[in-house]
Amino acid sequence: MMKKSIGAGTFATPSPVWVVGTYDKNGKPNMMTAAWGGICCSRPPCIYVSVREATYSYGNIMNRKAYTVSIPKEVNWREADYSGTASGRETDKFEDTSLKPVKSEVVDAPYVEEYPLVLECKLKDVVKLGSHTMFVGEILDVKVDQDVLSNDRPDIQKIKPILFNSGDRGYHSVGSRIADAFSIRNPPKS
Amino acid sequence: MMKKSIGAGTFATPSPVWVVGTYDKNGKPNMMTAAWGGICCSRPPCIYVSVREATYSYGNIMNRKAYTVSIPKEVNWREADYSGTASGRETDKFEDTSLKPVKSEVVDAPYVEEYPLVLECKLKDVVKLGSHTMFVGEILDVKVDQDVLSNDRPDIQKIKPILFNSGDRGYHSVGSRIADAFSIRNPPKS
Repeated sequence: MMKKSIGAGTFATPSPVWVVGTYDKNGKPNMMTAAWGGICCSRPPCIYVSVREATYSYGNIMNRKAYTVSIPKEVNWREADYSGTASGRETDKFEDTSLKPVKSEVVDAPYVEEYPLVLECKLKDVVKLGSHTMFVGEILDVKVDQDVLSNDRPDIQKIKPILFNSGDRGYHSVGSRIADAFSIRNPPKS
Repeated sequence: MMKKSIGAGTFATPSPVWVVGTYDKNGKPNMMTAAWGGICCSRPPCIYVSVREATYSYGNIMNRKAYTVSIPKEVNWREADYSGTASGRETDKFEDTSLKPVKSEVVDAPYVEEYPLVLECKLKDVVKLGSHTMFVGEILDVKVDQDVLSNDRPDIQKIKPILFNSGDRGYHSVGSRIADAFSIRNPPKS
């Protein structure tokens, strides 16, 4: 198959749809949807979210040195999309959507009660890259709705998180389970 | 729904399954599967992969200041899994799998011919975090198989990339398209 050059762009796929929870200087909770985020270290467990300096969340994270990542379900896509287009500087996105902010007991940030998987993060590193700044957070605890656990671990087939694809600027769902990872120890011939 | 604390862990979901291509000091091509990776900046377009210092890829990236990210299809899961368990220090994973390394024309690294989407990256930043080091790369070009393009952009439904979920250490497929992103401008009531 001939490969075509399409120029420099952010076309890696898939990307997550994750919602970043923060408090502003008056203690007002905010949530912002980020597609640029990922786990970046196993020990200590770390995650990052990349945020533009113009966003309300940027200042909140810089001030509070903390944020949460709440992972919405497929059925939450409208709320998650809205919290990526509106700004907490102009509106209260929790009130707008009737979603409920819950104060984390371990970091100075709120999470989204209705979203099934939550990571509570203490700011560890700030990496300025250009349009976006990476906020690397150490994950201090993970909170999960009981009904999306299997063997006490988060079950992606129950969570049904949303996938973002930059190619079509679209949201996609998770399909079926393919196989166990770390299971092919001998060379498979393609 | 009551949330349960499951402790600090790398339980964000989904994560990608991406294959990092590098050359060693003798010019031998290597590929390593990483689940800790993501887009981290829009302008300039940047991606990162997190790699343990013990891996062969770590030294290769440090020496060559370049890498590629090749995104495998669902049908490639066995090859992709194998290239995450075997080490290039001990074997030639391209020979083992009969996959073909192609020398990038824009960076000093090879990519996987059979994988449909490729990002060619120049090393921009190195962030040591603990068990893993983040290699942030500036994406200089993207190459795509013609048959996974729609309107000249990568189509996730044609690529059918693999999702990794750390909760069950399993691979999962992409399901159906849900909706356009950036489409909900007014508050949806949940």
